[in-house]
Amino acid sequence: MSEQEQDNVPKVEDREEGQDLVEGDGSTVPSKNELKKRAKQAEKEKKAAEKAAKAKEREEAAAAAAANEPDYSEGLYGKLPLNQSQEITGRERISFRTLNASRAGETVLFRARLHTTRAQAKMVFLSFRQRIDTVQALITADKDKVSKQMVKWVAGLDAESIVLVEGTVQKTNEPVKSTTITDCEIIISKIHLISGIDSRLPFSFEDAARPESEYEKDDARYNKVLLETRLNNRVFDLRTQTNQSIFILQSAVTGLFRSYLDSQGFIEIHSPKLQGAATESGASVFKVEYFKGSAFLAQSPQLAKQMAIAGDFERVYEIGPVFRAENANTHRHMTEFTGLDLEMTIEESYEEVITTLDELFLYIFDGLTTKYLREIEQVEKQFPADRFKWRTKEQGGTLRLKWWEGNELLKAAGVELDPFEDLNTENEKFLGKLVKEKYDTDYFILDKFPLAVRAFYTMPDAKDSRYSNSYDFFMRGEEILSGAQRVHDAALLEQRMKEHEINPESMKGYLDAFKMGMPPHGGGGVGLERVVMLFLKLNNIRRASLFPRDPKRLEP
Amino acid sequence: MSEQEQDNVPKVEDREEGQDLVEGDGSTVPSKNELKKRAKQAEKEKKAAEKAAKAKEREEAAAAAAANEPDYSEGLYGKLPLNQSQEITGRERISFRTLNASRAGETVLFRARLHTTRAQAKMVFLSFRQRIDTVQALITADKDKVSKQMVKWVAGLDAESIVLVEGTVQKTNEPVKSTTITDCEIIISKIHLISGIDSRLPFSFEDAARPESEYEKDDARYNKVLLETRLNNRVFDLRTQTNQSIFILQSAVTGLFRSYLDSQGFIEIHSPKLQGAATESGASVFKVEYFKGSAFLAQSPQLAKQMAIAGDFERVYEIGPVFRAENANTHRHMTEFTGLDLEMTIEESYEEVITTLDELFLYIFDGLTTKYLREIEQVEKQFPADRFKWRTKEQGGTLRLKWWEGNELLKAAGVELDPFEDLNTENEKFLGKLVKEKYDTDYFILDKFPLAVRAFYTMPDAKDSRYSNSYDFFMRGEEILSGAQRVHDAALLEQRMKEHEINPESMKGYLDAFKMGMPPHGGGGVGLERVVMLFLKLNNIRRASLFPRDPKRLEP
Repeated sequence: MSEQEQDNVPKVEDREEGQDLVEGDGSTVPSKNELKKRAKQAEKEKKAAEKAAKAKEREEAAAAAAANEPDYSEGLYGKLPLNQSQEITGRERISFRTLNASRAGETVLFRARLHTTRAQAKMVFLSFRQRIDTVQALITADKDKVSKQMVKWVAGLDAESIVLVEGTVQKTNEPVKSTTITDCEIIISKIHLISGIDSRLPFSFEDAARPESEYEKDDARYNKVLLETRLNNRVFDLRTQTNQSIFILQSAVTGLFRSYLDSQGFIEIHSPKLQGAATESGASVFKVEYFKGSAFLAQSPQLAKQMAIAGDFERVYEIGPVFRAENANTHRHMTEFTGLDLEMTIEESYEEVITTLDELFLYIFDGLTTKYLREIEQVEKQFPADRFKWRTKEQGGTLRLKWWEGNELLKAAGVELDPFEDLNTENEKFLGKLVKEKYDTDYFILDKFPLAVRAFYTMPDAKDSRYSNSYDFFMRGEEILSGAQRVHDAALLEQRMKEHEINPESMKGYLDAFKMGMPPHGGGGVGLERVVMLFLKLNNIRRASLFPRDPKRLEP
Repeated sequence: MSEQEQDNVPKVEDREEGQDLVEGDGSTVPSKNELKKRAKQAEKEKKAAEKAAKAKEREEAAAAAAANEPDYSEGLYGKLPLNQSQEITGRERISFRTLNASRAGETVLFRARLHTTRAQAKMVFLSFRQRIDTVQALITADKDKVSKQMVKWVAGLDAESIVLVEGTVQKTNEPVKSTTITDCEIIISKIHLISGIDSRLPFSFEDAARPESEYEKDDARYNKVLLETRLNNRVFDLRTQTNQSIFILQSAVTGLFRSYLDSQGFIEIHSPKLQGAATESGASVFKVEYFKGSAFLAQSPQLAKQMAIAGDFERVYEIGPVFRAENANTHRHMTEFTGLDLEMTIEESYEEVITTLDELFLYIFDGLTTKYLREIEQVEKQFPADRFKWRTKEQGGTLRLKWWEGNELLKAAGVELDPFEDLNTENEKFLGKLVKEKYDTDYFILDKFPLAVRAFYTMPDAKDSRYSNSYDFFMRGEEILSGAQRVHDAALLEQRMKEHEINPESMKGYLDAFKMGMPPHGGGGVGLERVVMLFLKLNNIRRASLFPRDPKRLEP
């Protein structure tokens, strides 16, 4: 952090003592310790404000003195009028991605955030930021172009301001350590303020971006920004290079998901989130006031995508919000998340579906690591993790365990299990650990779940109806996809509904779709944020959601 | 329609007399005439059921007689056991897209719907359907392979059943007129039922697929299937080749939207639909029961995408549901539709945004007509329309009218207007007509709307604050995109909120995002279903929505 920032940015003393916000299943009620800290912080903020006010006074006095000297830099700096599209020059503004020493000598123009400033006698060292990229810059008073007044004005700019800068690219003698662009810097000739700061920053950018490992080394030294504080100030938090990378990667996952499925003859559908009845599972559904009646928010596009199959769409996917009214405050639950759903007809066996889903995931993993390595490495700087591992086709392909094989692994490790009961979260994680040890993969498929633990529309196994043609996919020991061959026979579906104590009449529209010729089919649903969280080992799903929603959070 | 279908399918006598369901702003209450028709239909259905029962009896008697003869076709036909993935042969099943006379002599295997059957003495003419494609087929009793029993069984199959067929491709002497594949047919050697029909079809496939022009020629001759009847039985309705094409085209629009924006450095975001407050416009927002409190469904991702810009995302788009609690029963309103939204930073002027949006639309129009011409032509068979016209870059590019130029066109045609009031739907349509006549384009941009008719976050024009930096895009005289440069200055935004009688405190999270350095930016929102409806001239937005939602419809 530059000295100037140290002065201007209030220190946020919410140093973390124990768990991060609901990192496990923890509570979010502030502890006494936390309340004390907050009082301490308020006091600090007050002092910082006083200090800042004094600094401003000094600055204004100096400016008044300088005002008496002639300013030969007029027009080269200052605040721009509000941009209302009044002028078009068409002049190119560069992206930092194109900046390197080969452009030395070139005059360039760019819009960027002021990342840091450090003022010395007659010069200011600065760095500018565009998303992930930062570059060093310098302005020095001289006798004909850059006046003292101009340098002073630059020194007074707030970090995070948006500026328009013109300058010359200069090769650096030694690699710059503090910026991402290391072989060149900018010698500023013009600088204007496009958009300034009207409020205090909630925490310092540097604190927000500091690697988790730094805290582990010396817990007391830095202000750790709590996840809750981040989420309360999400817009500012999103600017860190880590978060820029996380959401570039999130966008990449949906892009790869689509391009693979498009290549396999799928089409994208958009099914309604407003439902006439609370169907799939009545307990965890949100109720909506709908004119004079009620509607319910879809918990998944499950029924709609099956109906699209009944409508001859053959292969469909949907990317959209799904809503779960579960009062679960854990590291991996949200009340709204992005579902990546697909459904396809089956020719012979649900093996076709598993293969499609598996190839989809291999395509995504491969695409991320080949095309987005820089973003992955950027995230790893803040969240150190063993890089995500999977078995390529050349390495024998994805590990597929049968349900009972998974159970055997756990039993051999001393876990007591009922073979027809679902695995709890702890055992899932432990299975992931055992698989990693034995097979050196963070990604595997568990196939043939007990019928009793799956939804009513799951197809029973042909030979042993205690099992089913259903599967979960795991990443780092957590479920990221659940899917199955579905029951396509109307009579069997009705029977299965009754066995699940669902009144078939309550799902008439859905059931009717099966009575006019329904092909065998299967599919699955993926949680986008879970995939991103687990691929990058972010430890909390909220970090993979732009503006997360949970039972206690509806803002921002 | 085949004779057999005539016997089995109940005639649905909901012949349309006036307007289609809410084709304009019409009511959906059944008329007396309609009630009479329904009674008549019930009577017809009863008779048809009796007739069908008798036919079945006869068939069973014949089968019993035939059973005494040895059946040398055993194993070549019949109902397959329920597919529970019990067998994997890996044998290829073909897609009709690959079928043509060049494959003559080949034995092929495929899954398809039984489209039509017509039985003669010892043979059955059939046609099979896979989505848009149909092929003619034939089975004839012979002395060693195809028994009389087999032919009889085939003749008794219900239309819309899903079957597995093996046969030989045979070149036809004359082009087949009734199927899409015209130069070859299938000589059936094996046929099995995968999934049969357990209920009556709500209307005949042929009636559902009949061109609108046929009714115009002879309104009394055919059963017109009302839109409401279609939507009540949407799964079956979706199977028509027209609907298959509409949703392939809908999927293509989102695919083209994304691929263009991806190429321009945008990333995809997913913003929450659950909101803590009813912000943007309180009147038309759905309220959700949220644990012990309330939430509201987002009417657009407007605020979230602007906050993403404040979070340095630079260029974002979102494809997702938007919710409007407007009790509007028109041909172009739904309570839930798919929004295609984008937002981007501006370097100099909102011209950059208009250009991006315009190039996006040209890319979509061009992509649809070059890659999806077959689907467009398929839809035109049922909904005849003058093909959508736009001006390519070579033809001078898209017409951009200023607000006052649009007004002048209308005034010159005799319309009285207040120049600072918004255009009503009628005048919008009329303007579209005038533009088409004068400029020969179905697509144009109207720029510089009066400030007073736009949302509070719209940037006023730099020179004349009665106008604003905002625009609508039109297709066939209907608005499909609304957008603007946004106010990025926190103080001006607060002032504009107050002028719109919005309490800035109620939108604190949003407003705060502007106080930490906000770049100039702009964007727009597109209604996916409107684009599809207007491109294809479907006349009702529900036809472009998989399972449409309006104030009166939440099912299926």
